[in-house]
Amino acid sequence: MSNPILVDVLRGSRVESRHRGAVAVVDADGHGVLTLGDVERPVYPRSAIKPLQALPLIESGAADRYAVGPEELALACASHSGEPGHIITAKRMLARAGVDASALKCGAHWPIHQPSGQALAREGGSASALHNNCSGKHAGFLCVACALDVERETYVEPAHAVQRAVKAVLESLSAVTLAPDACAIDGCSVPTWALPLSALALAFARFGCGAGLAPERAKAAARLRAACAAHPWHVAGTGRFCTEIMQRFGARVLVKTGAEGVFCGALPAEGLGIAVKCDDGAGRAAEVMMAATLSRLMPAADRPALETFVRPTLRNWNGIVVGGMRPTDAV
Amino acid sequence: MSNPILVDVLRGSRVESRHRGAVAVVDADGHGVLTLGDVERPVYPRSAIKPLQALPLIESGAADRYAVGPEELALACASHSGEPGHIITAKRMLARAGVDASALKCGAHWPIHQPSGQALAREGGSASALHNNCSGKHAGFLCVACALDVERETYVEPAHAVQRAVKAVLESLSAVTLAPDACAIDGCSVPTWALPLSALALAFARFGCGAGLAPERAKAAARLRAACAAHPWHVAGTGRFCTEIMQRFGARVLVKTGAEGVFCGALPAEGLGIAVKCDDGAGRAAEVMMAATLSRLMPAADRPALETFVRPTLRNWNGIVVGGMRPTDAV
Repeated sequence: MSNPILVDVLRGSRVESRHRGAVAVVDADGHGVLTLGDVERPVYPRSAIKPLQALPLIESGAADRYAVGPEELALACASHSGEPGHIITAKRMLARAGVDASALKCGAHWPIHQPSGQALAREGGSASALHNNCSGKHAGFLCVACALDVERETYVEPAHAVQRAVKAVLESLSAVTLAPDACAIDGCSVPTWALPLSALALAFARFGCGAGLAPERAKAAARLRAACAAHPWHVAGTGRFCTEIMQRFGARVLVKTGAEGVFCGALPAEGLGIAVKCDDGAGRAAEVMMAATLSRLMPAADRPALETFVRPTLRNWNGIVVGGMRPTDAV
Repeated sequence: MSNPILVDVLRGSRVESRHRGAVAVVDADGHGVLTLGDVERPVYPRSAIKPLQALPLIESGAADRYAVGPEELALACASHSGEPGHIITAKRMLARAGVDASALKCGAHWPIHQPSGQALAREGGSASALHNNCSGKHAGFLCVACALDVERETYVEPAHAVQRAVKAVLESLSAVTLAPDACAIDGCSVPTWALPLSALALAFARFGCGAGLAPERAKAAARLRAACAAHPWHVAGTGRFCTEIMQRFGARVLVKTGAEGVFCGALPAEGLGIAVKCDDGAGRAAEVMMAATLSRLMPAADRPALETFVRPTLRNWNGIVVGGMRPTDAV
């Protein structure tokens, strides 16, 4: 069974490329509100669940013990662009737990934000684990390890207390028992657990409104949501989809991108969770799928603010409009 | 009608993403040797036809008049990585025609080759039209404009003598009459004409072996092929698919990548042309599709040299193997 074509990429008068995918929108009871394509096939959520992976940072007591502030909590939920402000926040977060960048196991890459990478090169710098888009998440993991007083060397391993805590959160929020064969290795070396989109959407519905969660967990989720809403630049970076959307809508929308065309989100007031997967892994199409889904679920008055994300324009190196992307009638 | 899934992307034990596409392999008479998916729907060939777009550089007499050498001819066929050697060659080519980089209309972007971009930033440089992956093609177009003694300001426009010459080459090689509505604007601002994959494959079959071409054109094609075979680094760059394949096989294989998942190629000895389009525009999958097609068409003794391209391994930022890509049984 094929997933439907959800996004067309146009050049001139023709469709140049097309993206298939699946979309699940569910409420906090797990009732499907919108289902496109196969939402029961497990997918690796990758970075799209970073806000959920950050729950142990609060629930372990680490955030309070180390006075982790809202910018740092937002960075723990982030796939950041490696801009100078992100690096400062990541360093500060590590320092609070008494460790430094050498404790990070995410691996090094150059900043996603090209001008920041160029500035880094200009200063004679080079790629480090701090610039890795996952360094905030990993700094959060290290805070948890320190608070639990367990060894930090293997914090990325599935058997480590930090990753076991993350897995327990995921299982509880998604109502899925994660079997060992659902586990693969993420880009930053932590486990990524395959889950159906419907279960991911349920997890985000619960995370978004607190329904069905124990009071302490609901409070922790609200604290992370507030941090992301207050500091959306820390969740991604300059010009990025997650940042732009949350800058526009504040606490009304939580969105988080993941590699290979995954996107998760929550509409807290509506009590809805959203999970998207572009079959071919394209982030550009997952963004359009998420924007079109938000546009469908949010009040009509919000649609104009979403339009540039629902139907982005494509320009070439000379700035000439050469085409665009648009959701198909299936969305 | 859906094109078949031709490439799976694996992570751990699961398929994480999948890519659909179409493949056309034809001989110089236009007989189909291998047909996967819809090969009659027109697709924009983008940069995959640069070797064909370079024919006027020789046929106009420009290459001889300006003593354009084989490295420069290879660069005219290139989507180069903007490494220092590419920039030197592009500058030399422009100088031969008595123009400089200010005449280029391709637009500026940072080098594709990340270390070269970092070195450029370190030296206080910035992105220029010379670093644009198309600067060799554009330098070739400028040589043609100079040789024809026509104005150079509008050389990227469809009505300009250079682009009319390119269009005539395409129509003749592909046996397709290009209607105005087949025209869109490429990333570097020149026209890109939509053609069926079957027609693109025919054009490359003819370009690859000279069959069905006038003697002068067959000679020009042979000269461009020889230039690419002798200087594959100039056709792409360090570590790139086109370069690596042509370094391995020399004059036996011509391959050329294009944006949005297009790939063209020729097997001169076999008299075959190849055209590939990944539906979703992913270059990573188009490479696997091309490698798998070559592996199917070439002698069994050549398959080991293709294996790393047919089934590439995926590693994360720590160098850990996290998955890989592989062609499906459909290829």
